[in-house]
Amino acid sequence: MSEQQTVAVIGLGIMGGPMAANLVRAGFTVTGYNRSPQKVERLVEAGGRGAGSVAEAVAEADVIITMLPDSPDVEAVVTGDEGLIAHARSGAIWVDASTIRPDVAVALAEQARAAGLRALDAPVSGGEQGAIDAALSIMVGGEQADFDEVRPVLEAVGKTIVLVGPSGSGQTVKAANQLIVAGTIGLVAEALVFLQAYDVDTDAAIQVLAGGLAGNRILDRKATAMVAGEFTPGFRIDLHHKDLGIVTSAAREAGVAIPLGALTAQLVGATRALGHGDLDHSALMLLIQQLSGRTPR
Amino acid sequence: MSEQQTVAVIGLGIMGGPMAANLVRAGFTVTGYNRSPQKVERLVEAGGRGAGSVAEAVAEADVIITMLPDSPDVEAVVTGDEGLIAHARSGAIWVDASTIRPDVAVALAEQARAAGLRALDAPVSGGEQGAIDAALSIMVGGEQADFDEVRPVLEAVGKTIVLVGPSGSGQTVKAANQLIVAGTIGLVAEALVFLQAYDVDTDAAIQVLAGGLAGNRILDRKATAMVAGEFTPGFRIDLHHKDLGIVTSAAREAGVAIPLGALTAQLVGATRALGHGDLDHSALMLLIQQLSGRTPR
Repeated sequence: MSEQQTVAVIGLGIMGGPMAANLVRAGFTVTGYNRSPQKVERLVEAGGRGAGSVAEAVAEADVIITMLPDSPDVEAVVTGDEGLIAHARSGAIWVDASTIRPDVAVALAEQARAAGLRALDAPVSGGEQGAIDAALSIMVGGEQADFDEVRPVLEAVGKTIVLVGPSGSGQTVKAANQLIVAGTIGLVAEALVFLQAYDVDTDAAIQVLAGGLAGNRILDRKATAMVAGEFTPGFRIDLHHKDLGIVTSAAREAGVAIPLGALTAQLVGATRALGHGDLDHSALMLLIQQLSGRTPR
Repeated sequence: MSEQQTVAVIGLGIMGGPMAANLVRAGFTVTGYNRSPQKVERLVEAGGRGAGSVAEAVAEADVIITMLPDSPDVEAVVTGDEGLIAHARSGAIWVDASTIRPDVAVALAEQARAAGLRALDAPVSGGEQGAIDAALSIMVGGEQADFDEVRPVLEAVGKTIVLVGPSGSGQTVKAANQLIVAGTIGLVAEALVFLQAYDVDTDAAIQVLAGGLAGNRILDRKATAMVAGEFTPGFRIDLHHKDLGIVTSAAREAGVAIPLGALTAQLVGATRALGHGDLDHSALMLLIQQLSGRTPR
């Protein structure tokens, strides 16, 4: 396949919008669809084409990317009379970049294959900035041949692009990713509140913690903002809460004990219950401060 | 101070031994003491001087480094008729590189100051390899002037060297460090067992997880060995169990909630109860596998 191939992008939000724009920039012919027409308009201004329906967007596409909030949204777009499966060309590759349940990913991929399409689950990590910078990490589940064929498309939006196993595996790795990210935010929040309680210089502490075996991306990118009480998203608590539902349910299904993951899910749920669902996931800090009787600085 | 200053090192074990050797290599006059004379002999072979007692080791020293397993060991060496305080020269700087309770660190530093010494708590992170490579992270609590004076000595054994606050603050940051490290090992272990249960390619998954917001030093340095079931220490479960006792107790004292830290302490304690106390702290993986009915690969 050459860069002349036609790509459809369904879902032009915080992540899908910049991904579609980067595909245009890389030389692909991109047709976009979104429920709110303003977002389609933005893609057209960036040099893409607009479509009025899923059916219209996918009709001519070699590769179809979906980037939607949750499992039911993906099911709605993919199945049914007006859906992707009904209207995509035979042999087209459907790439689901959404974060959804691994079992739903497997079931939808099977439906798509039965209808003559090919399917990859390809959830991403890296957030809005990663999407804008075309620097996403992409964890892909599906067939090697389909992965190889769609690789130039993924390289236009991501940096670390890895085939991790058969259909559903991308979602499984994304679930593991979300467990580690939320848990690490929790650990860093506990460490910071502990250091604040002992009047330690948190800037100096973050520096030395980041230099040793405790080092992680949350310390590098979020700890200073957490101390300052700045929680502009980024990735919202509401969405991370959804993702922790996916990982706890998938772990339960497989009979795997994730005691720290399960507690993290409870803590993120409690942060949401306190009314912080629209803040960045690092706002887990606010819960730990409240549980410790400490007001944010 | 010049590199002609005399340094005493009390405790020449896995950490103290290579630290003393690196001080010799950097041009310091180093006198070492250890309960087992073989370790003193090794320092003498490396160009240091041996002492037959704490009193003898510290008598001529400008800087005295202690590197001992736990709070009671440090108390025993520092206080009493045969101790460091009784025999060190007035104005000498005592640097405790051990990981001990912050409240004990504060109390002992006060005793040392009352006797005319100066005192810094300076626990380290980076393990045996960091000690050998003179690449330790060192988190220091105490006075700025004492920190500045002892800095050349610390630079001979460490790389990231940060004054984080008054006496005890070094131990407080080390406690936070140990909370994050053990918690991260737990999160990575849960993620890996989850991925194994779904037959995901763990090597590929580790690569893509390490590239995104989930990235951390445990994924970089230990995850592959955890999958392979290799748990040669490194840093032993027994010692991390001790350190998690310090952080849970210090958090409780300060009224800080550390739900993930407390659960991690329980999990590390259970790993120890299963008989894995002598394995590397990454052997927390064995507990998660056992809780999930999965035998190690």
